[in-house]
Amino acid sequence: MRYAVIMAGGSGTRLWPLSRQGQPKQLLPLFEGRSLLQLAYDRAARLVEPDRILVCTGAPYAKDVRRQLPDLREENLLGEPVGRDSLNAAAWPAAVVDRRDPDAVMAVLTADQLISPADVFVERLAEGFAVAEADEAALVTFGVVPTFPHPGYGYLERGETLAGFPDAAHVVAFTEKPDAETARTYLATGRYWWNSGMFVWRAATFLRQIEALLPATYAAVRDLADAPTRLGEIFPALVKTSIDYAIMEPVSRGAGTAHVVAVALPIQWQDVGSFEALATVWPADASGNVVQGAAVVAEGRGNLVVNADDESIVALFGVDDLVVVRTPTATLVMPLARSQDVKSLVGHVAARHGDDLA
Amino acid sequence: MRYAVIMAGGSGTRLWPLSRQGQPKQLLPLFEGRSLLQLAYDRAARLVEPDRILVCTGAPYAKDVRRQLPDLREENLLGEPVGRDSLNAAAWPAAVVDRRDPDAVMAVLTADQLISPADVFVERLAEGFAVAEADEAALVTFGVVPTFPHPGYGYLERGETLAGFPDAAHVVAFTEKPDAETARTYLATGRYWWNSGMFVWRAATFLRQIEALLPATYAAVRDLADAPTRLGEIFPALVKTSIDYAIMEPVSRGAGTAHVVAVALPIQWQDVGSFEALATVWPADASGNVVQGAAVVAEGRGNLVVNADDESIVALFGVDDLVVVRTPTATLVMPLARSQDVKSLVGHVAARHGDDLA
Repeated sequence: MRYAVIMAGGSGTRLWPLSRQGQPKQLLPLFEGRSLLQLAYDRAARLVEPDRILVCTGAPYAKDVRRQLPDLREENLLGEPVGRDSLNAAAWPAAVVDRRDPDAVMAVLTADQLISPADVFVERLAEGFAVAEADEAALVTFGVVPTFPHPGYGYLERGETLAGFPDAAHVVAFTEKPDAETARTYLATGRYWWNSGMFVWRAATFLRQIEALLPATYAAVRDLADAPTRLGEIFPALVKTSIDYAIMEPVSRGAGTAHVVAVALPIQWQDVGSFEALATVWPADASGNVVQGAAVVAEGRGNLVVNADDESIVALFGVDDLVVVRTPTATLVMPLARSQDVKSLVGHVAARHGDDLA
Repeated sequence: MRYAVIMAGGSGTRLWPLSRQGQPKQLLPLFEGRSLLQLAYDRAARLVEPDRILVCTGAPYAKDVRRQLPDLREENLLGEPVGRDSLNAAAWPAAVVDRRDPDAVMAVLTADQLISPADVFVERLAEGFAVAEADEAALVTFGVVPTFPHPGYGYLERGETLAGFPDAAHVVAFTEKPDAETARTYLATGRYWWNSGMFVWRAATFLRQIEALLPATYAAVRDLADAPTRLGEIFPALVKTSIDYAIMEPVSRGAGTAHVVAVALPIQWQDVGSFEALATVWPADASGNVVQGAAVVAEGRGNLVVNADDESIVALFGVDDLVVVRTPTATLVMPLARSQDVKSLVGHVAARHGDDLA
C-alpha cells in the first residue's frame, strides 16, 4: 500500500509579520486562499488514499493543520514536541507506517516550495512509487531539473538511467552548495539536479538503514510507534540530524544495505521563503506593483503590498520598490530587495515589544 | 460676563487615515493624549466659567465632542447640520449668548493650531477681554507675531498702539496671502502680524455689524436663537462667508459702527494640518525618526511613524524620510515631503474601496 508523509515543521521568520511563531510559512493561505501545506496535501491525495496520508508538524501547529486539512485522520497527525530535523520527522512516521503495514511504500514530501505544474509532479511521484515498488532496496530521491545555476541549493549527480524507468537514474554523489562557478559547470553538464529533499521508499527499507547507521534512533522510533504516550520522553532525546546527512549520503557512498536512485522533476520549484521571492509568484499590474488583499498604490512602481487584515485598506503613494505587509497585529515597511534581512528586524521587535509580536 | 466660543467644524483629509470623515483633525488625541479641541478648551477655561464656554462643530462630531469635553453643557454644544464657514459658526453662538446675557463679552477661538506657551496665550486673551470690556465698539482680533516670512497666511497691518493697552494696536488693513518677497518686507517692517482668525467682542456689537452688513444673516441667527428647533430649516439657508471677508475687512475700511483692534500674540503657532508639520511638533530620536505609538525603526532616518492601532506594532527597516501611519482600519505609506498630497490619495481610496474607508 502507498503512504505519504508530509513534513511541515518549519518555523521561519523571513515572512514576518505574515509568518510568526504561531503561524509558520507553510500554513499561510497565500496562494489563491490555499497554503503550501494544503497544496502539498492536494498533490499527495491524487496518488494516496486520505487515510494513508500523514502530516508531521510542530505540536503548536497541530490545531491549525487540523483546521486546514479536514480529511486528515487524527492518528495521522504527528506533532513533534520539539524540532529534531528531517531525519526524525521522517523516521517517526516511518515506524508508525511500518507498524500498520510492513509492506508499505511511503513518500516523504516537503511543504516549503511552490510547485508547478502539479500534474508533472504527480506523474513523477507516481514513477517514484513504481521504482520503490519494483526495487525493495531503492531509496528514491527526487532531483529538480535546474533552470539556472543556483548556488544556494544542494545538488545530486546522476549516473546511469534506470532500466525500465526513463526518468530515473542512479545517484553517483550528493554535493553541498557549490560556488557560483561550480554551479554554472553543473548546469552545463546536464548531470546535476537540485536536491529536492523529497523521497519514496519502502518504510521497512528506510528503517533498516537507520538501524544500521543510527541504532539508537532506530530503537527510539520503534518504541515511539509502540508507545505513543512516551512521545514527550522519547522525542526530545533524539539526535538532531537530516535525512541527507544521516542516510542518503552514506548510502550513496556504499554504507547500509540499500542504494540511491533519483527521479527527475522537470518542474518550477519556487522557494517562497522571502517577500522578494513571493513578489515573483503573484501577478504584477502595469506598474510592476504586486498587490494581495485590499490595497491601493498610487504613483508608485515595483512595490509588493500584502494586506492580510480584513476590514482594512493599505495605501501607498509615491513610493517604489517597497514591501508593505499588514496583518491584524503588525505592519512591515522595508525595501523589497532587502527582504531577506527581515529576520534581524524581528529581533528588534522582540527586544522592544516582546516575543508575542515577533 | 465673559463667554468663549470654540469653532471646531473642520473636516480636513490631509491627515488621512488619522483624520477621516468621522473624525476630523481637531478631535485627534495627538498631543500627549489631548486633542486640539481639548487644548483650546483648557486655555479658554482658564478665563471663562465652564458653563459659559460654547463649542460650535459639525453635527456628526457632536458625540465625540461631548465625550472629549465632559464639562461642556449640553445647551452649549451647537451642531451645524452643514458647514457654512466661520461667520455663521460665530454668528449663531453670538445670538445664543446675546439672548442669555445682553452684556456678554465673547471670545471666538479656533482649534486648528497648536499653541505654545499656553500661559502667554491666556495672558493676551485676557488683554483682549479687557479691551472689549473697556471699549464697547471694539472688534478685537489677535495678531500672531511672525517668526518667519510665511507666504501662506493672511496678515494684518497694525497702526498706533492703543492707549492703556501696550500689547494692542489699531488695525490699518487686512491683507491677503502675500508673495514671498512681500512676506519678507512685512517681516522686516515689524508692522505686520499673522491673522489668527480669533477674536473678542461684545456679542451685541458683533451682531450689530452683522445687522448692518448682512441683514438676512442677522435675522436668521436671531430666529435660530429664539427657535432652536428650526435649525435644520434656517442654518442651511445661511450665506457661506467668513468673519474676515464679511465683517472685519469692511469694518476696518469704515463700514459698520465699530472699529478693529488687534492684540499681539507672541506665541508658537503651529499648523499641524499635515504629517510634515506634525513631524516637527513631536520629538525625534537620534536618527531623526519621530515615533508615536508602538513602532520600531531599524536602519532608517527621518521617518514619521504614527501607530494609532493599539495591540499592534509597526516596523520599518532600511527606509528613510517616509510617513507611515496605521489606524485600526487603514495603513498609509508615502514620502514625508509629499504628505500635503495625501488628499489625492484619499480620492483613489474612496474610488476603489468606498467612502467608509476614506
